[in-house]
Amino acid sequence: MIEKVLIANRGEIAVRIIRACREMGIETVAVYSEADKEALHTQLADEAICIGPAPSTESYLSMERIISATLVSGADAIHPGFGFLSENSKFAELCEQCNITFIGPSSEVIRKMGNKQEARNTMVAAGVPVIPGSKEPIYDAQTGAAIADEIGYPVIVKAALGGGGKGMRVAETPEEFESSFNTAQKETQMAFGDNTMYIEHFVQHPRHIEFQIMADKHGNVIHLGERDCSVQRNHQKMIEESPSIALSDAMRREMGEAAVKAAKAANYTNAGTIEFLLEKSGNFYFMEMNTRIQVEHPVTEWVTGIDLIKEQIKIADGRELSYTQDEVTITGHAIECRINAENPKKNFRPSPGTITDMYLPGGKGVRIDSAIYSGYTVTPYYDSMLAKLIVHAKNRKEAIRKMRSALGEIIIEGIDTNVDYQYEILQHPDFESGDIDIEFIEKMS
Amino acid sequence: MIEKVLIANRGEIAVRIIRACREMGIETVAVYSEADKEALHTQLADEAICIGPAPSTESYLSMERIISATLVSGADAIHPGFGFLSENSKFAELCEQCNITFIGPSSEVIRKMGNKQEARNTMVAAGVPVIPGSKEPIYDAQTGAAIADEIGYPVIVKAALGGGGKGMRVAETPEEFESSFNTAQKETQMAFGDNTMYIEHFVQHPRHIEFQIMADKHGNVIHLGERDCSVQRNHQKMIEESPSIALSDAMRREMGEAAVKAAKAANYTNAGTIEFLLEKSGNFYFMEMNTRIQVEHPVTEWVTGIDLIKEQIKIADGRELSYTQDEVTITGHAIECRINAENPKKNFRPSPGTITDMYLPGGKGVRIDSAIYSGYTVTPYYDSMLAKLIVHAKNRKEAIRKMRSALGEIIIEGIDTNVDYQYEILQHPDFESGDIDIEFIEKMS
Repeated sequence: MIEKVLIANRGEIAVRIIRACREMGIETVAVYSEADKEALHTQLADEAICIGPAPSTESYLSMERIISATLVSGADAIHPGFGFLSENSKFAELCEQCNITFIGPSSEVIRKMGNKQEARNTMVAAGVPVIPGSKEPIYDAQTGAAIADEIGYPVIVKAALGGGGKGMRVAETPEEFESSFNTAQKETQMAFGDNTMYIEHFVQHPRHIEFQIMADKHGNVIHLGERDCSVQRNHQKMIEESPSIALSDAMRREMGEAAVKAAKAANYTNAGTIEFLLEKSGNFYFMEMNTRIQVEHPVTEWVTGIDLIKEQIKIADGRELSYTQDEVTITGHAIECRINAENPKKNFRPSPGTITDMYLPGGKGVRIDSAIYSGYTVTPYYDSMLAKLIVHAKNRKEAIRKMRSALGEIIIEGIDTNVDYQYEILQHPDFESGDIDIEFIEKMS
Repeated sequence: MIEKVLIANRGEIAVRIIRACREMGIETVAVYSEADKEALHTQLADEAICIGPAPSTESYLSMERIISATLVSGADAIHPGFGFLSENSKFAELCEQCNITFIGPSSEVIRKMGNKQEARNTMVAAGVPVIPGSKEPIYDAQTGAAIADEIGYPVIVKAALGGGGKGMRVAETPEEFESSFNTAQKETQMAFGDNTMYIEHFVQHPRHIEFQIMADKHGNVIHLGERDCSVQRNHQKMIEESPSIALSDAMRREMGEAAVKAAKAANYTNAGTIEFLLEKSGNFYFMEMNTRIQVEHPVTEWVTGIDLIKEQIKIADGRELSYTQDEVTITGHAIECRINAENPKKNFRPSPGTITDMYLPGGKGVRIDSAIYSGYTVTPYYDSMLAKLIVHAKNRKEAIRKMRSALGEIIIEGIDTNVDYQYEILQHPDFESGDIDIEFIEKMS
């Protein structure tokens, strides 16, 4: 039985984990950097151990110091949160070697899913849809055109080596193919001194749809529905919601089954996420698996009623899942906005500083996960996320109204935040109608 | 259609109503006393009108000033909240005369249910159980004993006139009756110069169980389950929960049907509460009807998912109920603790003053309804309630753990509060097992 958990993280997720442990009667040990002496997680945990200076490499990323703190405090388990060491297979392995329960999947699964090619191969073998692509190197347009026909248009021609957008061309139709291929190949030769090409189906205007997975050590795997995380800026999620307006019940079932199949194929245990790209056509493709709890887990918690962190701990403790797939029901609609210390008018430049005054909303259907307080100093060392504002209402329209109202109440003074920017998104007609894809923010600004 | 609501109240309930209106796209007008210039409701509403000095009689209880503010601001409806003018039938009548929609029942129903004898008669006529009592004046022990046999033991003999606990005796058994009656009658003669007695069934160690009623203007009446409000100090509720651990499904159905019958008998419309006393035997008795929204409405909101304030506004606007009885389901368990500015160690003396520092918890299953902020000054003029902390979990045991954890996080500095006292209650074995009645707090201290 897990009796004492060390939380190898900081900020709101550390607070979130401390709360779950406290409610389960489990003792908690916080670790903190010298910059986080006054942080909320440091104050809330039963014990707190300083593990080094502010830079993460010398504290939150230092495996040795975290393992030492665990052994010194007598904690029998580590919750890694997200970011930092949460998807580091070596760290999970080190825990296994030290007989410390790592609250997450096995190091082997983390390693395997962390390798994009291996993850893709696993999915292909399991029959989970991946973005169709050429299997052999391609050197000429004629061979390429035949393969492109098989894959289905639009396609993207890419340099097999290299990256940075060089040697890449989209062909929307067979007519365009030859010229696109030749241009891309010429660029590839110029840039990389090589003319090996790769062709892949070009996923147009996709949504980011991810499925929450829960798997115990007894072979039970279920999903807790999807999250639509299409509102992204530079691949950083800004707003997440559940359920997705883009999925019919039939699609939810189909994608959910694919996600469960993917997790089973990976021999997955604990909480994880299968990320898909969803085309307007209804086709969806495996993108990657996140082998940890996600920032956006609260939207799933609110529509399912299931406490994901507690469930993670129970699974790590060897218990069976608390729910069967049939017992998971989705009620209402939840939206999360990430509140960051950044200035949207200055290219989202981070805005560290001291919060001189603060007021956060509350009331029916409003949840705040944060680690800030009036007088708290946001340091420049870490992620700029200050708080997550999550709302729940009986449908998407009411959830949007509630989010607007709640955003409108927030007061955070002394630093810049993206609250007004989030409010703008919530007012945007395309967001309101749900007619968005992962390029929404780019097109909006 | 209601387009602009004046909120004739202050504090957290005013904030609660402003939020509901904002989410419905309805404009809001706050009224405030000179002492409430910096209050949150004054700041949050679209408009705010000062209606006089701090004493309630000159502001929040001044019907003329509130009606004037309504007419001046062009609001078409008034939400009275609870307390103040919320159960004043004259105020409701004044609204009716001024063509202002009063968000509550008709003045006639408020008047009728506010008169205890008339309310009791209505319930008797409708077949709703009331505490059995003698119908005629009683002057001698022999007649009294025969009536006591009919009523059922234990009984309480009371002076027909008077009060203050004088001339009252409990007879547990028929053997005790004669002596109890005679002693009570002697005391009555001494105290009131009269020897008319009244006999009533003595409800022993009851729980306070109340049912939430919702009734539209089209004859639809439903209940939203019960709240157990047995944790009271001097008849002031401190902790409320839903559902009640004391009710079986069959009892919930029976009492719920009685509550609906009671509301129908009263020709009730809008949100209201039927309060019952529940004996260990399972017998329950109508106590009174509250013709307004209650402080403790959030526990019902959380287990049913229904927004009671929005529903009130829709009903006042003439719309039909959004739910049928069959559509109301109870999910999980919710508990509310009232956080008051008072010192439990000094006989709960109110503790006005400035909040110099404040931190309130958040996260999964935690809701806070409050109107305080760091720097806010609690004035001595009004109710001492600062905030309501409401938690929700899948069952009572988990809800209690969550409430303890959340109470443990609260920081309110500069004034005294009852947070530690609430924490003690949450730790009490009788509260934990649910073995409580309305005398619990008395017995605990």
